[in-house]
Amino acid sequence: MLIFMEKIHLDDYTIHIGDAGETLHEFLQERRYSKVFLLADQHTVLHCLPKLKFNEELPKLDLIVIPAGEIHKTISTCELIWAHLLKNGADRKAVLINLGGGVIGDMGGFCARTYKRGIDFVQIPTTLLSQVDASIGGKLGIDFASVKNSIGVFCNPQAVLVDPSFLQTLSPAERRSGFAEIIKHGLIADAHQWEHIRTQQNLENVADWKSFIVPSLHIKKNVVEADPFEKGLRKALNFGHTIGHAIEGHALDTDRPLLHGEAVAIGMVCEAFLSAKKTGLSERELRILTDFLLGMYDAYELEEKNFAHYLELMGNDKKNEGDQINFATIGPIGVAHINQTASRDEIIDSLRFYNDLLKSMSPTAH
Amino acid sequence: MLIFMEKIHLDDYTIHIGDAGETLHEFLQERRYSKVFLLADQHTVLHCLPKLKFNEELPKLDLIVIPAGEIHKTISTCELIWAHLLKNGADRKAVLINLGGGVIGDMGGFCARTYKRGIDFVQIPTTLLSQVDASIGGKLGIDFASVKNSIGVFCNPQAVLVDPSFLQTLSPAERRSGFAEIIKHGLIADAHQWEHIRTQQNLENVADWKSFIVPSLHIKKNVVEADPFEKGLRKALNFGHTIGHAIEGHALDTDRPLLHGEAVAIGMVCEAFLSAKKTGLSERELRILTDFLLGMYDAYELEEKNFAHYLELMGNDKKNEGDQINFATIGPIGVAHINQTASRDEIIDSLRFYNDLLKSMSPTAH
Repeated sequence: MLIFMEKIHLDDYTIHIGDAGETLHEFLQERRYSKVFLLADQHTVLHCLPKLKFNEELPKLDLIVIPAGEIHKTISTCELIWAHLLKNGADRKAVLINLGGGVIGDMGGFCARTYKRGIDFVQIPTTLLSQVDASIGGKLGIDFASVKNSIGVFCNPQAVLVDPSFLQTLSPAERRSGFAEIIKHGLIADAHQWEHIRTQQNLENVADWKSFIVPSLHIKKNVVEADPFEKGLRKALNFGHTIGHAIEGHALDTDRPLLHGEAVAIGMVCEAFLSAKKTGLSERELRILTDFLLGMYDAYELEEKNFAHYLELMGNDKKNEGDQINFATIGPIGVAHINQTASRDEIIDSLRFYNDLLKSMSPTAH
Repeated sequence: MLIFMEKIHLDDYTIHIGDAGETLHEFLQERRYSKVFLLADQHTVLHCLPKLKFNEELPKLDLIVIPAGEIHKTISTCELIWAHLLKNGADRKAVLINLGGGVIGDMGGFCARTYKRGIDFVQIPTTLLSQVDASIGGKLGIDFASVKNSIGVFCNPQAVLVDPSFLQTLSPAERRSGFAEIIKHGLIADAHQWEHIRTQQNLENVADWKSFIVPSLHIKKNVVEADPFEKGLRKALNFGHTIGHAIEGHALDTDRPLLHGEAVAIGMVCEAFLSAKKTGLSERELRILTDFLLGMYDAYELEEKNFAHYLELMGNDKKNEGDQINFATIGPIGVAHINQTASRDEIIDSLRFYNDLLKSMSPTAH
């Protein structure tokens, strides 16, 4: 089989899209690390690690396995990881390979960056979400005191290996979740790519994942390189996230939690409504966009009694400064606007807009 | 009284030597922080905070007070600090002022650097040690699993305010401890400054602290700017520390703990012995140097039964790579040599050298 390897060069590291095992092999032979540690969770150790084909040719692998899930993205789990590194003699020339989704990448990167004031780390994102979102931007961190990613640092890895074959290990819902970021990247920066995206009505039979992943990474690269510390332009990536994060945070404590991308898809519907109000997104584009999102993602009614909590959670977002609640909007599709603000009433209108769309769809549509 | 303010400009921040209250006042008026937090310990809140003259002209101060001492330089204390910031609405435009010695600066800086992926912080070191050592180099961190500074990051503050008047709040032993770093800076890089230092036989009546602090900061600046991530030259700053850290670490668990500089002074005697063996420090310079150190610092016999533990602790030092134990040596005074190694027997000889010097001194010398 011919392996087609694609590379995206960033300022200080490279994303390799293709066979992760092969690339990792070459990477470790080039660099002379004193020890190689690999962080995985209970799922990726079973379903993803075998693909990396660690054998006697590679340096001996020291495995750190943690329980899967966002609830373990805590300082306590960091302590387990740091203790393992310390106990097993990791010096400053050691490397940590993070094999898993966003939790593994964010937390493993944070642990590497803070262990002995920083050791090298390699990200091998295994979910679609982490492949297109966490691969660029250097955002590392953990949840603290119930606030997502409230403790962390910005730091780039030594390499990112994106292997679309890992996507077979995901559930359809997880693939849809990651796809929300691909949609977002098209909406904020690339109308042409959006046209490609909207041809993909569902994700059952994706012929060429790279045709979604690679342009998405290029969009994110352009935005992040223009604004590495999230002072301006990068806020465009927040489209769908101000409201999406709040819905996700609220759902976390209910019996129907949402995946990140599922919440962001709802957030994009609401913030597209705000975009039509504030930054000239046309009624036609709004309808095309919301039809597409409601066609792909499951309905999730937003109950009026939770609106106050949503607003409170939006107020806690770390992208806010002082009392203002910031939004990124679009208009037309492919063009983003940052530092937009909306009143409490406008935000509530946007939540109701989503609910009304749900009601207007025939029950058989899903 | 005329206030003489001196400034040392580094790549991305400035050290102000002089009245800290006045400088802080100007700094906070220039920058428009959303909130001002100040981290202090039980001592600095009483003895140092009043000097900063916070009043209605300054932004309202939000105080975080933690217990004093190295045993609190832990992830648990970080959790208290992060929780305080979060609970009191610190956004990314907030600033944290760290008022205290090395523990406050290292841990407060680490908390600021990792809170919401980084907020501004200002260091106001109140001990001589932190004024001459921690002011430059961006080393932030905490102790973890009994290993000093094993978790941390490199990151520079927005400003450092060095106020020699805080030195009045220190015990004589604390002043001597900080002075060890001043001695070290002369020994590794500036023979002329060493001649000034050795005229100061004790620290009872220091007429001009700036004449020690400012040149010391310039030496450290030159070394650190040439090697910000401790890949090469910066290892010269480790002179006296390989053995000193081990002695300090061992003493920590005994009924006679040593201050950092007291242990480094012993380490410098031992590593000067290794310097004579390996990098041409003359017998004459060795004698002048050891006479000076033994004259200033209290005797502390190194018991043979602890040598194995010292060697084990040296093996854990994060500056080592693989199995080698690294030293920085001098020879002649004012010239440092990095990446030196010594055998187990040579290290033991150097410990015995220190003990023999103690014995050769008359009991009335102290």
